[in-house]
Amino acid sequence: MGSKYQKSVRVWFPPLALTLEVIFIVVFFFFTSYPAAVGEKKTLLRTYRAFQDVFLMATLGFGFLNTSLRRHCWSSIAFNLFLLALGVQLAVLLDGLLIQLSLRKMTIDMLSIQKATMSATSVLISAGVVLGKVNLLQLVFMTLIEVTAFSATRLVGMNYLSMEEHVSMMYIHMFAAYFGLTVVCCLQKPLPSASEDKDQTAMSPSLFTMLGTLFLWMLWPSFNSALLEEADEKKKAVLNTYYALAVSMVTAILMSSLAHPQGKINMTHIHNAVLAGGVVVGAPSHLIHSPWLAMVLGFVAGVISIGGVKYVQACLQRTVQLHDTYGVHYTFGLPGLLGGIVNIVLMELHEGTTKSTLDYQGLINLGALGFTIIMAVISGLLTGLLLNLNIWKSTHKSHYFDDQSFWKFPHLAVGY
Amino acid sequence: MGSKYQKSVRVWFPPLALTLEVIFIVVFFFFTSYPAAVGEKKTLLRTYRAFQDVFLMATLGFGFLNTSLRRHCWSSIAFNLFLLALGVQLAVLLDGLLIQLSLRKMTIDMLSIQKATMSATSVLISAGVVLGKVNLLQLVFMTLIEVTAFSATRLVGMNYLSMEEHVSMMYIHMFAAYFGLTVVCCLQKPLPSASEDKDQTAMSPSLFTMLGTLFLWMLWPSFNSALLEEADEKKKAVLNTYYALAVSMVTAILMSSLAHPQGKINMTHIHNAVLAGGVVVGAPSHLIHSPWLAMVLGFVAGVISIGGVKYVQACLQRTVQLHDTYGVHYTFGLPGLLGGIVNIVLMELHEGTTKSTLDYQGLINLGALGFTIIMAVISGLLTGLLLNLNIWKSTHKSHYFDDQSFWKFPHLAVGY
Amino acid sequence: MGSKYQKSVRVWFPPLALTLEVIFIVVFFFFTSYPAAVGEKKTLLRTYRAFQDVFLMATLGFGFLNTSLRRHCWSSIAFNLFLLALGVQLAVLLDGLLIQLSLRKMTIDMLSIQKATMSATSVLISAGVVLGKVNLLQLVFMTLIEVTAFSATRLVGMNYLSMEEHVSMMYIHMFAAYFGLTVVCCLQKPLPSASEDKDQTAMSPSLFTMLGTLFLWMLWPSFNSALLEEADEKKKAVLNTYYALAVSMVTAILMSSLAHPQGKINMTHIHNAVLAGGVVVGAPSHLIHSPWLAMVLGFVAGVISIGGVKYVQACLQRTVQLHDTYGVHYTFGLPGLLGGIVNIVLMELHEGTTKSTLDYQGLINLGALGFTIIMAVISGLLTGLLLNLNIWKSTHKSHYFDDQSFWKFPHLAVGY
Repeated sequence: MGSKYQKSVRVWFPPLALTLEVIFIVVFFFFTSYPAAVGEKKTLLRTYRAFQDVFLMATLGFGFLNTSLRRHCWSSIAFNLFLLALGVQLAVLLDGLLIQLSLRKMTIDMLSIQKATMSATSVLISAGVVLGKVNLLQLVFMTLIEVTAFSATRLVGMNYLSMEEHVSMMYIHMFAAYFGLTVVCCLQKPLPSASEDKDQTAMSPSLFTMLGTLFLWMLWPSFNSALLEEADEKKKAVLNTYYALAVSMVTAILMSSLAHPQGKINMTHIHNAVLAGGVVVGAPSHLIHSPWLAMVLGFVAGVISIGGVKYVQACLQRTVQLHDTYGVHYTFGLPGLLGGIVNIVLMELHEGTTKSTLDYQGLINLGALGFTIIMAVISGLLTGLLLNLNIWKSTHKSHYFDDQSFWKFPHLAVGY
Repeated sequence: MGSKYQKSVRVWFPPLALTLEVIFIVVFFFFTSYPAAVGEKKTLLRTYRAFQDVFLMATLGFGFLNTSLRRHCWSSIAFNLFLLALGVQLAVLLDGLLIQLSLRKMTIDMLSIQKATMSATSVLISAGVVLGKVNLLQLVFMTLIEVTAFSATRLVGMNYLSMEEHVSMMYIHMFAAYFGLTVVCCLQKPLPSASEDKDQTAMSPSLFTMLGTLFLWMLWPSFNSALLEEADEKKKAVLNTYYALAVSMVTAILMSSLAHPQGKINMTHIHNAVLAGGVVVGAPSHLIHSPWLAMVLGFVAGVISIGGVKYVQACLQRTVQLHDTYGVHYTFGLPGLLGGIVNIVLMELHEGTTKSTLDYQGLINLGALGFTIIMAVISGLLTGLLLNLNIWKSTHKSHYFDDQSFWKFPHLAVGY
Repeated sequence: MGSKYQKSVRVWFPPLALTLEVIFIVVFFFFTSYPAAVGEKKTLLRTYRAFQDVFLMATLGFGFLNTSLRRHCWSSIAFNLFLLALGVQLAVLLDGLLIQLSLRKMTIDMLSIQKATMSATSVLISAGVVLGKVNLLQLVFMTLIEVTAFSATRLVGMNYLSMEEHVSMMYIHMFAAYFGLTVVCCLQKPLPSASEDKDQTAMSPSLFTMLGTLFLWMLWPSFNSALLEEADEKKKAVLNTYYALAVSMVTAILMSSLAHPQGKINMTHIHNAVLAGGVVVGAPSHLIHSPWLAMVLGFVAGVISIGGVKYVQACLQRTVQLHDTYGVHYTFGLPGLLGGIVNIVLMELHEGTTKSTLDYQGLINLGALGFTIIMAVISGLLTGLLLNLNIWKSTHKSHYFDDQSFWKFPHLAVGY
């Protein structure tokens, strides 16, 4: 493992990261300040809790979600935190600068960090697709491009396509999934043998993956309701997400049992399916007026997720050479897309009284959905081409932890 | 392992689960809606946090609590979530229908889901007794019966025996423990050799079990105070639970050291004893007026828990053939019973001024306690007899995960 | 392992712990009560959340932080909880008695338990230095002395050196680190061979250590803002801590990559560096007026932490025979000291208008900082000498868990 270690990372990573961090500090020095006006303690507490839940999802949930690949369990958690820390700093600055579109000092409060954390989550989702295929240096570039692209997409959507902030943020699952998939399509394919070795281990999910999944499952209602302002909408979002998650859990066990010739349950299916329930109600959660619809959506998401992994994935891998290790397409991509469409339909029905403006607004909403996907694919293509350049001299391995600390851990060393 | 896989589960589980889920969705479609009246955002937040704590206990706490049996660690977590998801849907409907006793539409808010989650926790406690002795199909039936029985017991207790809602819910530990123990008594006994093999591994608790225990320990104050309305009672419940837990922790280490001939500490003792402290103050927590009483109760609970596992369990296993793998009787059963009795005594002392009504109310309270236990035993007996029918063709194994995903995980494969 | 088991612990630990617990209960019986006046439900909730976060850090964060030493992973968690439970009971009583300085009944509310939990955290930090070098009996004595010393230090600081409560509590990292280091300096040195065996395994951190680190990382903003009263200060503390943590994470990866000849990343570095970011902004967090300063402090903390472990630790170990297994000095000691100094400088600048009183107050603040360190060293010296007495008949091993439960766990048995 040590011998394959890449020179480009060893030489370029420390100065690059240092430069980035210094730039961030300088920009923060010149362009940011805390707001002078002081809110109430109660409001502070409320914001802090929502922020904490989102932060918890990003660190513990996504951190432990991708630990099941034997070779990447350290990298997954440490890189996840590193990318999150980078991404949040960038997203705070971008949100401030792009929204102001000027160089005045911007004020930073807890809400702006919360939104930045949510934006940076896109990197963590995409990392699930590319982990193990790129090195740390490439991940840094991917983070910079993806956060910028997603912030720009959100800004354009909100300013020119009249999207609500909540909806524009909820498209994150879809954006991140298609961004990641496009990047991985562009990357040089690993040799089949190596790929197979990795796939094999990808089938053995660990209790830590379960832990990450549970954290995500549990906090999904907070994520889906974080940007809603009205108490009524917030409550509906929480309850609908909860119902969708409960049904997708039942569906996961059911479908996994059906999918196996002997009725056995595959834990990877469970991981994917339970999250799909939260993703699918993301965008429309505040518009669903009674539990049954959320339950049906949760059911459909579970079916899509496990059916996708079981039947579509193998097909895609053969035809497009798409190597989606964790099934991100079926956990985040398709359910996110479905959620977006359901949201548009519900908005149509909701405002269904005035027929004339209806179609126009519906088209714009569809356009916003399409725009998000197109931006994801374009920026993903750009990233993929950039990461494919020869300068990375990449052998496509990101697990270059200290041999000593890696191999001495018996839990991990066993099994080779 | 694959060869022992039961045909009944393979064939019947998917259609049964699908049918159940469809029934749930249909009932939700016809009989539920969200409340039209909108609460304040502050109230929402308060309810959401309490709900989240209970949810966290149910998923992470109970999910990881029973992972120490080598063969059941996957099943434990996935089945736990599955049973929780089923149980919550059923409990929401039952609570609504039974309380209304009519077929009008019922409104569902966060509090009703919170109560449903607490009710469904009973299944998770009972599952600790029967896990490894029944299959998934049997677990589904057990869930349906237990949640129905517990909801009915609570309803009768509140409507006809003048129990407070808080107390009726806190009897859950006792109910679930005696329900589970009765079920396991009725089941056919596994062969001695297999049983011994399982016992052996039951002695090696893992760090994940510790994680589950810690989540439960930490959130127990939230559970014990969740249904109390007055701020003063809520605060007392939190503080008393905290003191009881702290003392039961100290007692656990102390007793475990005493129980071993060489003074060594057994982690299984710790798991049981620290939870017993939270169980024992469940019912009376809001009536305890100074910390020392909670501390004494925590101490007694620790002694009961470890003394029970050490001295009574072996005796019961010989005489009644009761096979209580995780010591649920000593963690939830006896401490819950003690808590119930202490609650009744404290209520007597509390209202001790008017002598005439005193005895009458005291008798009713005792009757409610007895009624809960009797309901637990009767419904447990019913479940046990049902699960014992030949139709299950059970070889009494619930661990039928995909061999591939199970055996490839080195952590688990090692040790055989 | 069984043969080395110490008679002193076996014989003396149970009666000692029992006596202590009985004394606590008696003191609580005579001297404590709950407050009669009832607060609002909203205030209760707010306090409860802050309390819960601190409690979570103490149990899950510190519990899992020190699990990486192969031989101490059980001891670490169980002992951690035991010491926490003991320490909190003692700290509640001490805070009450010392602040009142009389024997009247004291009232205990949630805030006093929160402060007691924070004080008891000092034991958990120090335990990171001495774990594996002392037995359980010695740990109990260490807990009693350290909590008493820290409470006395805080009291003197607040009453006679005009320290704010927040600052006096934030010196806990520094206090605990230097206390622990002094204790370990006094202890008899383990034989070199055994020491080397332990060091070797100390290099293989586990995912559980990562879990503990993440819990601490995530909740650090709560810890740093727990004792601040004004909403504005609270918010600044949260935001500054967040920025410092984010930058220290980036710095950790960067420095770890720089420190290794081949650019590989060492997970032990990451654990240390990410926490150092939270420690350094502890004392001054409410005085920092814009993000960049917190970011610079986080950067410096990361550099100190990894630089210290890499270059200074080996030197200290050779010269002073200081054996700091987990690098507590560089995670808590030095960053805490730096934070204290920054706090004094910021207070000077903040009140910089009235020149005359300035120097005087600055000197007092410096004195308070020095006083805390001196108290830590003196009480640590006292503890170290006490623990070095022959009565302990110590072979310096604290891992005396039930052989059966320990060795049966394959995960741990492998690797020997």
